[in-house]
Amino acid sequence: MLIIAERINSSRKSIAEAITTRNRAFIQAEAKKQADAGADYIDVNAAVFVGEEIEHLTWVIETVQEATDLPLCIDSPDPKVIGAVLPLVKSAPMINSITLEPARLEGLLPMVAEYKAKVVGLCQSEDTMAESTESKVELAGRLVEAVQKAGVPLDDLYIDPLVYPLGTSSNSAQFTMDAIDRIMTEFPGVHTTCGLTNVSHGLPARKLVNRTFLVGCVIKGLDSAIMDPTDNQLFAALKTAVMVSGRDDFCLEFIQAFRSGRLEQA
Amino acid sequence: MLIIAERINSSRKSIAEAITTRNRAFIQAEAKKQADAGADYIDVNAAVFVGEEIEHLTWVIETVQEATDLPLCIDSPDPKVIGAVLPLVKSAPMINSITLEPARLEGLLPMVAEYKAKVVGLCQSEDTMAESTESKVELAGRLVEAVQKAGVPLDDLYIDPLVYPLGTSSNSAQFTMDAIDRIMTEFPGVHTTCGLTNVSHGLPARKLVNRTFLVGCVIKGLDSAIMDPTDNQLFAALKTAVMVSGRDDFCLEFIQAFRSGRLEQA
Repeated sequence: MLIIAERINSSRKSIAEAITTRNRAFIQAEAKKQADAGADYIDVNAAVFVGEEIEHLTWVIETVQEATDLPLCIDSPDPKVIGAVLPLVKSAPMINSITLEPARLEGLLPMVAEYKAKVVGLCQSEDTMAESTESKVELAGRLVEAVQKAGVPLDDLYIDPLVYPLGTSSNSAQFTMDAIDRIMTEFPGVHTTCGLTNVSHGLPARKLVNRTFLVGCVIKGLDSAIMDPTDNQLFAALKTAVMVSGRDDFCLEFIQAFRSGRLEQA
Repeated sequence: MLIIAERINSSRKSIAEAITTRNRAFIQAEAKKQADAGADYIDVNAAVFVGEEIEHLTWVIETVQEATDLPLCIDSPDPKVIGAVLPLVKSAPMINSITLEPARLEGLLPMVAEYKAKVVGLCQSEDTMAESTESKVELAGRLVEAVQKAGVPLDDLYIDPLVYPLGTSSNSAQFTMDAIDRIMTEFPGVHTTCGLTNVSHGLPARKLVNRTFLVGCVIKGLDSAIMDPTDNQLFAALKTAVMVSGRDDFCLEFIQAFRSGRLEQA
């Protein structure tokens, strides 16, 4: 289970402020906190600064890499920004994200191949926000095809089937979970990932909804998540779901998490 | 989602003591507490009192029925005990449980039919403790067949695929969840139910494990659970899992649970 730690995102006010004020200590503390909490990749995002994204993301990347040796997940909707910052990374990164939009796909796939990067592929095309299971799986198939054609191993692709708010469609989470199940079965070797917060948009008790959705996704085969590993209840739900889904031999990881105090709220 | 409330079970010390001392107030408070917390059936069990089970269970049933109008789930391994107390119930009960052991099956099915009762069917035969998904589904098929032959509608059968401790087999929960998925798909119209506590036997943070397993089972299609509805974290996990699995139109039940304060810990 690969954890992409999401906290260093400019859509969060405290992060945006730390970026504009060049608050190195704050960003580095966020990086270390997530590394200590079990992150595998540190997501870095400066996308709110349209027009100045390269400059800001460059600073964030250099700052985070001083604080941790973990690889980065370069998070931008703009292939030009990703191309500009990729030469800075110290170890093979993850790129977040490609879609089936031709400019984004064709702009990014050569870089994914060149940097031997992992890449998040969103089930989204120019004309489709895939809501049904069927349409998510169809777009996933097109991502698989495009990535393989570009010479990127399937093992480097993390398909995000996307999730829409339960408040606007009662089946949205089910469609995403069923898509995870089918993608993992129909494209052996590929990975799946997912962000969690969208599912609970507009509902109360959002953290409860997010972590219950995470458990459901893991039970259906999800093997990566874009999440906040410093949220102990969320982390505990993840570790327990991995065990319950039969992917924790002898319950060793679960027992280790318990011993290190990470399951204490339970 | 049908909740069979499990607290009035003589394997719990406080309950056994209340039964032997004929502590009516204690048993009735347990019944009311569970009814208020969302129980659909109140399980009643006096099975630790071997030789005196009929006498004790009779008292428990009369006591509980004074406190609540909810139907009962008559819980005994002994068909003779169940036969003796069935005439006491005020509304169509659930019988907990049949297995494929001939004496238990043949002893109980005529009563299930006569009382138009619902019945829990365990995936267990004289010679098999079904551990694999395959063997659980096979025994489920034999239960379906036996029940239908006895003239009991499939809608009255709640198949419990059983779960063995994760501590002794890392795949045990996965096998149970996959069996739930297959049973609900292969025998349309049947129900599934499950107890939760066995899965975490020998592990730390047992409540976390139990409720994560419950979420997984619900995501796989479980439509009933044998559980303690007064455990707010467990109840919140259940309500949220039902919503996430697409079975809560417009999130109404979830929002109602939130408004009544049942999701507060989240």
